[in-house]
Amino acid sequence: MKKPLRIAVVGLGTVGGGVLKILETHKEMISVRAGREIQIMAVSASNKTKSRDFDISSYEWVDNAAELGLADNIDLVVELVGGSDGIAKVVAENTLKAGKSFVTANKALIAHHGAYLAGLASDNKVALRYEAAVAGGIPIIKSIGEGLAGNKITKVYGIMNGTTNYMLSQMERTGRSYDEILEETEQLGYLESDPSLDLDGIDAAHKLAILSSVAFGVKTDFENVYVEGIREITTRDIEYAGELGYRIKLLGITTYEKGKLKQRVHPAFVALDEPVAAVMDGFNAIAVQGDGADKCFFQGRGAGEGPTASAVVADLIDIARGHMDEAFFVPASKLVPAQPVSMTDHLSSYYIKLHVAEAAGVIADITAALKNEDVSLDQMHQKGSEEDGSVYVVLVTHEVLESSLHKALKEINNLPVNLNDAFAIRIENL
Amino acid sequence: MKKPLRIAVVGLGTVGGGVLKILETHKEMISVRAGREIQIMAVSASNKTKSRDFDISSYEWVDNAAELGLADNIDLVVELVGGSDGIAKVVAENTLKAGKSFVTANKALIAHHGAYLAGLASDNKVALRYEAAVAGGIPIIKSIGEGLAGNKITKVYGIMNGTTNYMLSQMERTGRSYDEILEETEQLGYLESDPSLDLDGIDAAHKLAILSSVAFGVKTDFENVYVEGIREITTRDIEYAGELGYRIKLLGITTYEKGKLKQRVHPAFVALDEPVAAVMDGFNAIAVQGDGADKCFFQGRGAGEGPTASAVVADLIDIARGHMDEAFFVPASKLVPAQPVSMTDHLSSYYIKLHVAEAAGVIADITAALKNEDVSLDQMHQKGSEEDGSVYVVLVTHEVLESSLHKALKEINNLPVNLNDAFAIRIENL
Repeated sequence: MKKPLRIAVVGLGTVGGGVLKILETHKEMISVRAGREIQIMAVSASNKTKSRDFDISSYEWVDNAAELGLADNIDLVVELVGGSDGIAKVVAENTLKAGKSFVTANKALIAHHGAYLAGLASDNKVALRYEAAVAGGIPIIKSIGEGLAGNKITKVYGIMNGTTNYMLSQMERTGRSYDEILEETEQLGYLESDPSLDLDGIDAAHKLAILSSVAFGVKTDFENVYVEGIREITTRDIEYAGELGYRIKLLGITTYEKGKLKQRVHPAFVALDEPVAAVMDGFNAIAVQGDGADKCFFQGRGAGEGPTASAVVADLIDIARGHMDEAFFVPASKLVPAQPVSMTDHLSSYYIKLHVAEAAGVIADITAALKNEDVSLDQMHQKGSEEDGSVYVVLVTHEVLESSLHKALKEINNLPVNLNDAFAIRIENL
Repeated sequence: MKKPLRIAVVGLGTVGGGVLKILETHKEMISVRAGREIQIMAVSASNKTKSRDFDISSYEWVDNAAELGLADNIDLVVELVGGSDGIAKVVAENTLKAGKSFVTANKALIAHHGAYLAGLASDNKVALRYEAAVAGGIPIIKSIGEGLAGNKITKVYGIMNGTTNYMLSQMERTGRSYDEILEETEQLGYLESDPSLDLDGIDAAHKLAILSSVAFGVKTDFENVYVEGIREITTRDIEYAGELGYRIKLLGITTYEKGKLKQRVHPAFVALDEPVAAVMDGFNAIAVQGDGADKCFFQGRGAGEGPTASAVVADLIDIARGHMDEAFFVPASKLVPAQPVSMTDHLSSYYIKLHVAEAAGVIADITAALKNEDVSLDQMHQKGSEEDGSVYVVLVTHEVLESSLHKALKEINNLPVNLNDAFAIRIENL
C-alpha cells in the first residue's frame, strides 16, 4: 500500500467535526477505497479549548492556520472555516503555493476566487477540490465535471439553498406568514450567521457561479449573477401559484449559449410536474442539461454535518487515489472569461399580483398599460373582495422582454387605484 | 499535451455510432477536458458494408474483433456488442490480458463476469470501466464509487429498466391492457431483441448486481438476484394501487447488512410521494442510502444513443485523464464473496388481489386462512360486483414473513370460490 495521505483540518465546527468523525469511524473502509491511509496530522481552529463532541487530543494543534500548508509533514489542507476572504483565502494560497493540495467546503471562497485559485493549483500541479461547497451530499461537481464530461452542457438549474426551500415549504404547508416562518427557521438554527446570504439568494448565487465554471469552463463570475431573494414572497403568492398549477421555488439557473453566460437566482413559478417542484424542505436538487445525456436530475441533502462532511471525505479519497485533475476540469489557463448577459433582454412569462382599492375600471387601465408596452396577457383573474373592499388581481403574461415588463409595471404602479406596487415573479419553462 | 489515447470500437450499432459521433463532433472539447486527444484508430462489427448514418471510412476496419486488444497501435478497446459471453467476453479478456484498458456498456458481461474481469484489469494494471452499463446517461457508477466514497452505503434501489417503466406508465395513462401496450412497445422498438430481458426483470437484475458490487465491494453475484417481472401486472392492479395511494414500479433493490447481501427485482407498490413514484416513461432513477449523505437520488434517461454513448465517452475521458482506479473502486483482490440472503425470511407488507365467484362467506374463509399463518390485515376492500357477478377483493397486510404469506396464499387459492390464483405485490417502504 502507498504512503498515507497526511492531512490537516482547519475549522472544527459542525463540518470539521464531521470530517474527523468519518475519517476515524471509517478508517479501514476509506483505506481500502483510497488505496492508502488518510491520516489526520494536525488541526486548527479559533478556540482550542472549546467543548466539542469529538476528540482532538491525538492531533497536533496549530494556532496559526496560515502555517499549516508549509509544514513538512502535511500533504493536504482541508479548510472548513468559510468566508470568501480572511483566513480561508490565506490558507488556500499558502497551501497551493507550497505545492500541496487543498480541499474546501467554502462556496464563497470558490465563487469569488475560483479562477485565481485554480490557476495556483494548476501552476503547482496540485489539486483544488470543493465538492462539499455545492449541494452538500450530492456529488454534483464530480457528476458534471467527470460523469457528464461526454456532454456539451447548456444549462444547469435547481434548488441550491436548503434554508429558503425549507421556508417556502413551511409557508405552503402551514399558511403562516414569511415573518413567522423566518423566526421559526432562525430558532431552528437553519439560517447562516448572516441571514442575508440565505434570504437574498447570495448563497445560491455562490453555488451557481461555481456550477457555471464546472459546466461551461468559464472563469467564476459571481459579480454578474443576477440575484433576487425570497423576502417579498407571501403566502398569498404561494396560494395563487398553486391555483395556477405551479409552486414557487428559489432557483439558480445558468445557461451558456454562443459564448454568452446568463446566471440568475430568483424565485420562480415552476410547473407542479417538474421534478424540482416536488423537492421540499431542506433538500437541494440540481438538473443538468447535456446534449448527449439530455436532462439529468440530482436530489439530496444540501447541508448538515453528514452530507457536507462525507463530500469532503470523497474529495480526500479522490486525491488519495491520485486524481489530480484541474479544479474546473479543464486547464486553468483555458478557462474562458465569462461574457455576462444582462437581464434586460431576458424573455420570460410572468405572474403579476396587483392589489387595488376597487375593481371598477381598473382592469381597463391595467390592460391599457400592458398594451402600451407590448405585454400580452395569457390569463387575468380578479379575486374576490377582501374584508376592506380591496381586490387582488392576478395576471399571467405571455413571454415578454424584461425591459418591457418593467416599463409596464411602472405605469401600473402609477395608477391611483394601486394600494401596493405590483409584484412579479418569473414563470420558468424548465 | 500528452500523447493521444488511441482507441478501437467494437460494435457499430446505435451506441457505437453515437460514440463515434460524439468523439468527432466534440473532438476539441474532449481534448481540452481529457488533457489529450482521444483518437479512433480502428473499428469492428459483424457487417462492414451495412448502411450506417455515420462514416467509418477513416478508421481501420478489423474483421476479427478478438485481435483488437493485441494491436500495437491501440491503447484501449470499447466493446458495444452486448451479451454476457461470446465475442464480448473474448474481446474483454484479450484486451485486459494484453495490458490495455477496456470500456463497455455491456451490463450482462459485467453482471456475469464482473469480479473475474476486475481481477484481470487489476493484475494488468489497466482500467475496466462500464458507466454506460447502468442507467444510461446517469453517472451512477462514478457517483457511488467516487462521489459517495465517504459513505458506508447500506441500500441502493430504483427503476433500472426504462422499457418496463414505459409500459407501466402507458398502462396507467391509457387504461389499455398489458398485451396491447406490449405490442405497441414492441412496434416502437423499445424492447430488447430477447424481450424476456426486459419483461422478466433480467436486465434490471444485471444492473442491480453491478450496483451491489460498486456500493458494497462484494463480488458480482447475478445468480442470486431474486427476480420477478411485470407480466402479471394488470391495469386493475395499477388502478387499485392508485386508490390506495401507491404506484406500481418495477424496482431493483439491494441491501447489505451484517455481511448479508439481499438483491431483488420485483414489482412494488411505491407511495406516491416517493421520488421514484414520479419517474415515468423511459426514465431511470436510482436512490443511494449512505450513512453520511443520507439519501441521494439520481434521475435521467436510461437508454438511447445520446445518453448511453455520452456515458461511454465519459469513461474514455476519465481514462485519458489517468484515472486508473479499480473496476469496483476497491482492489479486486479485496472484493468480498457475496453472502446472499434468501427471500424466505423477507419481511414486507403486501397488496393481495383476489377474484372470487361470489362475496358471500368468502371473507370469513379468507380471514381464517390468513389467521392460520399469522398474516394480519391492515385493510380489506370488497369491490363492486363485475358484470358476471364475480367480485374482486383487495387486501393490504401488515408486515409479514414471505414464507407465511406464501402458505396463506396457498390456502386461499384452494378455496373453491376462487376464480384465479391470488396475486400479491410487495409494498415497499423505501
